[in-house]
Amino acid sequence: MRAVPGTPTVPTRDRILYAAAELLRRQGYAGTGLKQVASCSQAPFGSIYHFFPGGKEQLADEVLRTGGAFFLALYRQILAEAPSVRDGIAAFFAGAGETLRATDFQDACPIATVAGEVASTNDALRRATADVFESWLAELAGDLVTAGVAAADARPLAFALLAQLEGAFLLCRALRTTEPMDAAARAAASLIAEGGAR
Amino acid sequence: MRAVPGTPTVPTRDRILYAAAELLRRQGYAGTGLKQVASCSQAPFGSIYHFFPGGKEQLADEVLRTGGAFFLALYRQILAEAPSVRDGIAAFFAGAGETLRATDFQDACPIATVAGEVASTNDALRRATADVFESWLAELAGDLVTAGVAAADARPLAFALLAQLEGAFLLCRALRTTEPMDAAARAAASLIAEGGAR
Repeated sequence: MRAVPGTPTVPTRDRILYAAAELLRRQGYAGTGLKQVASCSQAPFGSIYHFFPGGKEQLADEVLRTGGAFFLALYRQILAEAPSVRDGIAAFFAGAGETLRATDFQDACPIATVAGEVASTNDALRRATADVFESWLAELAGDLVTAGVAAADARPLAFALLAQLEGAFLLCRALRTTEPMDAAARAAASLIAEGGAR
Repeated sequence: MRAVPGTPTVPTRDRILYAAAELLRRQGYAGTGLKQVASCSQAPFGSIYHFFPGGKEQLADEVLRTGGAFFLALYRQILAEAPSVRDGIAAFFAGAGETLRATDFQDACPIATVAGEVASTNDALRRATADVFESWLAELAGDLVTAGVAAADARPLAFALLAQLEGAFLLCRALRTTEPMDAAARAAASLIAEGGAR
């Protein structure tokens, strides 16, 4: 079947997810309406409820989990290309700074803005953000153990590194400079070295 | 003039600011409506526009700046009671964890949730959050210099410590545990020691 000229060939459901992901990470959950999602994804408004019968909450839940998996895959790819865990994490922080600059400070963590909003207001979505953060932490802690960090120290160190990254994202976006990410990268390298990672 | 029995004696304008601050830090900017602010502050709806002719944006701007000044005063007080800058910052991180537990993980940074939301959507409010973060950074960097950190290292270290705190707030609220704040406190202590602060 040929696509009608001018018609996007990306499936409607994927266009909705992609548009919602972009809007949610930039504007947050309360600030994003389904009409705007429909408009940005070039999808009929009714198709959102067709694909996501649970409406905005179901759509956001899938956006958070998909965005979390994508971010984790990006991390895996960067670490696979690095000569060591230390170098890989340094490259991840450097890439975060570059992405912030390239996107005019709009494109940061895929879940942080929504995570802050829903933590005390929507327990279903809070759990989605908790699941995503836990998946990142487990992966990072595992890599730190592989790199030689003592098992008992790996999870606290993973928490500190992830907090360093998330805090730097927020400060960079608010201040419109990557100075906080540069400082976070140096602090992360120092904490990793102190933890005994190769 | 005696207060009418049962009538709050806190001035209306202050009640509006206090209620708005609580709602904004828990729900964010887009998720907080002026009707809810009026209801929670026991103020007539019209009085919000009387005191804040610029409406929700003006109210939020004042809430962010007032909350930022309050947080800075809290930091100053904790440091004044500590035997050293190192101990003071450690006490501040410990207090942050206690506050999270005591408030069922609702009461964290006074500006972070709104800062994430407005960074790419409302430049006036983004500037308010940037001014607040800068005021904290300047104070923290100054204290680090006083404690013996080299002047050139003080600002990057202040950025790293603030990022550590903000990231930990987000992770604690999402995961409903103070484990990230405990890890952040240890990481902060390590970074401060490495920076040469007394």
